[in-house]
Amino acid sequence: MINKLVEKIKKTGAPIVVGLDPMLKYVPSFIKEKAFSEYGETLEGAGEAIFEYNKGIVEAVCDLVPAVKPQIAMYEQFGIPGLIAFKRTVDLCKEKGLVVIGDIKRGDIGSTSSAYAVGHLGKVSVGPNSYYGFNEDFVTVNPYLGSDGVNPFLDVCREEKKGIFVLVKTSNPSSGELQDKKIQDDNGKPLYELVGEYVDKWASSCMGDKYSYIGAVVGATYPEMGKVLRKIMPKSYILVPGYGAQGGKGKDLIHFFNDDGLGAIINSSRGIIAAYQNEKYASYGESGYADASRAAVLDMKQDIAEALG
Amino acid sequence: MINKLVEKIKKTGAPIVVGLDPMLKYVPSFIKEKAFSEYGETLEGAGEAIFEYNKGIVEAVCDLVPAVKPQIAMYEQFGIPGLIAFKRTVDLCKEKGLVVIGDIKRGDIGSTSSAYAVGHLGKVSVGPNSYYGFNEDFVTVNPYLGSDGVNPFLDVCREEKKGIFVLVKTSNPSSGELQDKKIQDDNGKPLYELVGEYVDKWASSCMGDKYSYIGAVVGATYPEMGKVLRKIMPKSYILVPGYGAQGGKGKDLIHFFNDDGLGAIINSSRGIIAAYQNEKYASYGESGYADASRAAVLDMKQDIAEALG
Repeated sequence: MINKLVEKIKKTGAPIVVGLDPMLKYVPSFIKEKAFSEYGETLEGAGEAIFEYNKGIVEAVCDLVPAVKPQIAMYEQFGIPGLIAFKRTVDLCKEKGLVVIGDIKRGDIGSTSSAYAVGHLGKVSVGPNSYYGFNEDFVTVNPYLGSDGVNPFLDVCREEKKGIFVLVKTSNPSSGELQDKKIQDDNGKPLYELVGEYVDKWASSCMGDKYSYIGAVVGATYPEMGKVLRKIMPKSYILVPGYGAQGGKGKDLIHFFNDDGLGAIINSSRGIIAAYQNEKYASYGESGYADASRAAVLDMKQDIAEALG
Repeated sequence: MINKLVEKIKKTGAPIVVGLDPMLKYVPSFIKEKAFSEYGETLEGAGEAIFEYNKGIVEAVCDLVPAVKPQIAMYEQFGIPGLIAFKRTVDLCKEKGLVVIGDIKRGDIGSTSSAYAVGHLGKVSVGPNSYYGFNEDFVTVNPYLGSDGVNPFLDVCREEKKGIFVLVKTSNPSSGELQDKKIQDDNGKPLYELVGEYVDKWASSCMGDKYSYIGAVVGATYPEMGKVLRKIMPKSYILVPGYGAQGGKGKDLIHFFNDDGLGAIINSSRGIIAAYQNEKYASYGESGYADASRAAVLDMKQDIAEALG
């Protein structure tokens, strides 16, 4: 799947992943009204509204970008009906040929981490049968529990030719509270670098053609750290959140790429999916929300291309 | 809800939480056959089987213990039907008066962490209505992203009078890879102590009558670290996994309690729910699996009581 991701990035010329993180306040009224008239102002109605909203965006941008990243929390908040909307979104995006990165940030130990890996990337056995649960192509994984938490994902990645992005340095302001701490017995190396070294080790054991199935998450908001981590994990794709709404700029992104012009994929969520609510794209109006998203993707593609020179 | 938990622990005399982490291989044949005859060997069949299995155990132990801890990964692996079984399990346990700790180990940032908090502990708004998604009483939270990831949970905890257990030192063998690292600028304090200090700060801002709504997870497999963390977080309940099958012994547990005999709740999963598969309780047989679980709870209660003297 990393080979497919790299190939699609080359083909589209857009190292961009669209974060499908729907909030009801982003969903145009005409979509909400239709969903609520059918299902009421219920969890089911909310699930239907966010799915239909996603569908418009996915259809408008699927020829421009290689991948999408649905954030499962935004669906999980609506309980079972929300998770059904998540599953429908994953299925739709795969039908459209997009690589699907489930932003699930799971992480546990042993058989429990296996269960997450199986449920999101692999197949679970029921008697003689086996079934995909959610069937994303990649998922994000939290490393706080150590190798015990990550190894079960590696096993499933090898079997399914799928991948993970391990949280290394996250884009939020307080990410340094733990991640930046300097380790005494390791010459003051910050914790995120240690995690980066683990990622590189895991990456070596799960190689695709040129890049590994095992990638990392490093926030666009910390470009200098991105520069260091890029060198520590040469075989890993870096998934870069924090561009746009969180403050990361195009020029900051150059450090996340390798010399081959590959190795990073930049996420934008709100900046694309709620573009029509941004003054810049306001002329599209609610009814043109999907076209506004398409315009925002094209602008982002240009911003990145200019930054990479 | 922490007040209810403390009161129920006093009333039952059992600082025990039963981990409802079902695997199909634990489920007695007669339950699987019934579920599969109705739904086939499908995800739906698996969901029905694990729910019915849980139901037997919950009914057999609900007068003995204060709380249960369903591990969502074991349900999530079966996709939507698995998560429906999780929700049914939460609802059943609450009907039986048990405190429900959702072992979800979520953690993200900002609005995304809010979405998890709302979905699992609070209510989500859809138009003028609001709905509980999963409605657990407590959930476990991963701190790797820092305060940005935890604060949204604190807000919901205050509003709903519910709580969280933050992962501090986990029970698995590799937990030290990151959690034990000594911090250079903090006199070589290990990372888990720093996280413990954060927990204590968060705990102070969310107090129940005597204990805080904000607790911590510290593995029974690291009793010496538990001793230190007990002092760092005097107001927090410690949820202690790793007893029994993972190697933690009754005598190791004393360090996790405060002088008032409170402050810790010990989890056992496989040791209770799959007791009938253990030689010691084999005489109960498959048909007596729930009674075997009851016997295992009584033995665990005695083991802890002896250790606490």
